[in-house]
Amino acid sequence: MSHSPPARRWDTRRSDKRDRLARAAHYADGKVIPTTDIVPLLESLLVPGDRVVLEGNNQKQADFLSRALAAVDSSKVHDLHMIIPSVGRSEHLDLFERGIARKFDFSFAGTQSLRISQLLADGALEIGAIHTYIELYARLYVDLTPNVVLIAGYQADREGNLYTGSSTEDTPALVEAAAFRDGIVIAQVNEIVDDPRDLKRVDVPGSWIDLVVQSDRPFFMEPLFTRDPRLIKPIHVLMAMMAIRGVYERHQVQSLNHGIGFNTAAIELILPTYAESLGLKGKICRNWTLNPHPTMIPAIESGWVESVHSFGSELGMERYVAARPDVFFTGQDGSMRSNRAFCQLAGQYAVDLFIGSTLQIDGDGHSSTVTRGRLAGFGGAPNMGHNPGGRRHATPAWLDTIEPGDMLARGRKLVVQLVETFQGGGKPTFVETLDAVQVARDSGMPLAPIMIYGDDVTHVLTEEGIAYLYKATSLEQRREMLAAVAGVTPIGMRHDPARTAKLRADGLVALPEDLGVDRKLATRSLLAARSMADLVDWSGGLYDPPARFRSW
Amino acid sequence: MSHSPPARRWDTRRSDKRDRLARAAHYADGKVIPTTDIVPLLESLLVPGDRVVLEGNNQKQADFLSRALAAVDSSKVHDLHMIIPSVGRSEHLDLFERGIARKFDFSFAGTQSLRISQLLADGALEIGAIHTYIELYARLYVDLTPNVVLIAGYQADREGNLYTGSSTEDTPALVEAAAFRDGIVIAQVNEIVDDPRDLKRVDVPGSWIDLVVQSDRPFFMEPLFTRDPRLIKPIHVLMAMMAIRGVYERHQVQSLNHGIGFNTAAIELILPTYAESLGLKGKICRNWTLNPHPTMIPAIESGWVESVHSFGSELGMERYVAARPDVFFTGQDGSMRSNRAFCQLAGQYAVDLFIGSTLQIDGDGHSSTVTRGRLAGFGGAPNMGHNPGGRRHATPAWLDTIEPGDMLARGRKLVVQLVETFQGGGKPTFVETLDAVQVARDSGMPLAPIMIYGDDVTHVLTEEGIAYLYKATSLEQRREMLAAVAGVTPIGMRHDPARTAKLRADGLVALPEDLGVDRKLATRSLLAARSMADLVDWSGGLYDPPARFRSW
Repeated sequence: MSHSPPARRWDTRRSDKRDRLARAAHYADGKVIPTTDIVPLLESLLVPGDRVVLEGNNQKQADFLSRALAAVDSSKVHDLHMIIPSVGRSEHLDLFERGIARKFDFSFAGTQSLRISQLLADGALEIGAIHTYIELYARLYVDLTPNVVLIAGYQADREGNLYTGSSTEDTPALVEAAAFRDGIVIAQVNEIVDDPRDLKRVDVPGSWIDLVVQSDRPFFMEPLFTRDPRLIKPIHVLMAMMAIRGVYERHQVQSLNHGIGFNTAAIELILPTYAESLGLKGKICRNWTLNPHPTMIPAIESGWVESVHSFGSELGMERYVAARPDVFFTGQDGSMRSNRAFCQLAGQYAVDLFIGSTLQIDGDGHSSTVTRGRLAGFGGAPNMGHNPGGRRHATPAWLDTIEPGDMLARGRKLVVQLVETFQGGGKPTFVETLDAVQVARDSGMPLAPIMIYGDDVTHVLTEEGIAYLYKATSLEQRREMLAAVAGVTPIGMRHDPARTAKLRADGLVALPEDLGVDRKLATRSLLAARSMADLVDWSGGLYDPPARFRSW
Repeated sequence: MSHSPPARRWDTRRSDKRDRLARAAHYADGKVIPTTDIVPLLESLLVPGDRVVLEGNNQKQADFLSRALAAVDSSKVHDLHMIIPSVGRSEHLDLFERGIARKFDFSFAGTQSLRISQLLADGALEIGAIHTYIELYARLYVDLTPNVVLIAGYQADREGNLYTGSSTEDTPALVEAAAFRDGIVIAQVNEIVDDPRDLKRVDVPGSWIDLVVQSDRPFFMEPLFTRDPRLIKPIHVLMAMMAIRGVYERHQVQSLNHGIGFNTAAIELILPTYAESLGLKGKICRNWTLNPHPTMIPAIESGWVESVHSFGSELGMERYVAARPDVFFTGQDGSMRSNRAFCQLAGQYAVDLFIGSTLQIDGDGHSSTVTRGRLAGFGGAPNMGHNPGGRRHATPAWLDTIEPGDMLARGRKLVVQLVETFQGGGKPTFVETLDAVQVARDSGMPLAPIMIYGDDVTHVLTEEGIAYLYKATSLEQRREMLAAVAGVTPIGMRHDPARTAKLRADGLVALPEDLGVDRKLATRSLLAARSMADLVDWSGGLYDPPARFRSW
């Protein structure tokens, strides 16, 4: 063997970090940056072209840091590559408009999705990719390791030990990628305590955090998972009854994840009434992976729920969660601990069922929430709504989709699409072609942004009935089953009543009658809570709804 | 609405924990348990039927705690439900033989797999399920939340702050499930420091750890990922050359995960020679997810590798990793940080390719390492070796398996099975029926323990050639392609030379000649290192091979 190793430095990241922190030391007292110095500090610390992770989560937003970053001098800091899990603040996009940032990787955009499309069309931003949450975290450890990570917490001490509050969310997954590869982590906190013993608990060790700054006001939180029971309609109750009889009871679903929506809220609210009357308590729906939905309170109080592990938290649920530690994950201080990375793992690999909604489904069962002119992303839905091929443990529900005896078969995660055949405004949910296809063409994406692919969906449940898609033996049959529950949409109009009768007889499609669901019972009186005030009452006054949900 | 909430306690787990720690306080000085008191402490703290996680990882073993647990009085502590990621110690199974434990969930058993089968047959243990690593972690947050978690670290201070050493591995994922649901965490460490400033770094915050104990000797570590280059044969070099030309170069593989084996070690060792001669440096294989394989040293030293994120560590690689922080993930103290949960995420969602080996493949392409009488489990292989349906970002390699233009298509992770047609002892790798099928029947498992399913495999590479299985348009064609590279095994004997010629012409199968691979070059002289001493030399003396690998 002969080789002469070239003279190479192997600690360029470390020495770069040292240089940057030396520049930052001009502003900082130890690890603490004065609130008013954040803009010049960022200008001195950041370098054009840096890869910067900004904590914009589903709920918690590092908004003080994002506002500060949007205020830097773009002649000093420009062409940043921004990585933001959930784009929820207008200043996130000001960064691109002002030339501070150029490239963009994200997971979910919500209200900012229209503006992303416009900035893309204007050439003001370049999209790396639109990821799910966990694939975005994953890339931080592979080919998108950040130079700087900007995060939010509730409290820190002067050594950087961080208490995140209930919304730990994405923080640990984002911080670790920088802390262990010589990146720089800056945390905004609502409060800096001098004595470490005044810290409620430690969610991230101080040695992982380089700089802390007290924000000018508490970090922004979005109550995304609160659904007012007043807005639940009888049709939602009917669909919830079908879900309980035709899916949960039939497949003996023990562990599950609910999306957000009035349909799933209706299921949560009829567990203590309808499902209880069927004798199902303790037999189904015991272990949950979801945020602390206020509409879960009656089921929890009625003893339906053994455990809830959460992606994030929910505004107003803090005292309730803290008072129910047998059910929720909480820390030694008594407050909630969430963790999106682990809850995404749990929702993929440890649950029997995911049930959620969408805006459009095509004839093959592909679905998407992307609509014209909006690059929204899907957050965690594609992970929750697929059948993870790497799973190896069996549960009764998982095995229930296959014929016994075939030793080389695989069970399936139940993935249920719960949709009304028409959206508000008379738009059909079932469409010939998803808007996502045109959006992809318009934006130069190689593939259409599909949220959940048809072959991953095991059940489609509409107000018409349930299509047991996992039983389809061909694509043609899957299409027929879908058409049979698609009502008077263009896809539904394809269905042949004689074929539907046959599908019902063969157990491939079920109408409420076939499931023993009595349509007459499908009224709001079946809901265990019919208003926000009812939820507060169920909680014994522990739940504090955000102001906008208070109408009494 | 009317309801009268039943009088119910919601903090039973918390008060139970308080009671147990009060009993433990009899033995402990604050959080510190004297080494000699560990057995009576466990007897006082544990309750029959407890769910106990024991840190047995791929490398790091909480062996002091497992030995102590196996020594408790089984009249006091019995019927435990043990959860052990990697079963590597004989005392893990003594627990069942002695009646201390009864139910068992695990991921990988290795050398203990034969004894598990025997204990199962004897009725001494009951298997919950055999999981992959991440689905086992996932269930800790859903329906297998532990009462007690027993882990191993390198150092702790008296407040419980924990330094894990390079093998952080599974520790954070196991600890969090107990620390945030009122379970008890006990850490064995090699050293307890009085002054927190003497702790090298904090991998787990002290408030997550309830009790620490100094072990009687340093925790056991297994050097699982070391392959002596002396044992690499010319046939491995030939297959490595085919992998580089026919897979890595063809699909422009940038990010990847290698399994363990002489075949993949050969690939690592010809990157600086063969692949470099093809002008591929900087164009392929830049970002890696794998443990610090010693056979990666020449590629790293030659500038091939931008980054490595690791599941765990590897004995002897400590000083080398610490000296290459631009490449490896390291902490502020300079030593390595690994994290199996995040590396599994990265290996699923952020890489272009997984390549690994197996013991048996059937005619449909299903593979398994399970053989008669051994319930081994697969660790992380089923997660690495499948096409994650929840992925949404595109890379050139991921898109390369589909025809452009179909907007509803999905790219694929490349999953390559790299096998010789015969194993040692003349056993064919390609078989009519996997042993796993009979093992499942014998053990009463509902499904055969398949490691990687045929429809997830994109390429099978043998010394004969490469079958590009992702191009198969039918199961029949997939079988033909497999047979064409299966040599003179029973499956290979099925192939029809005329059909193989057609498959080659159509680009479905490629022999070395078709790939421009010169068989004459396939000798050991192509290896950048041909012995352990060569690896030490390449490392500039930084690599310290374990004693059993030292022959000079």
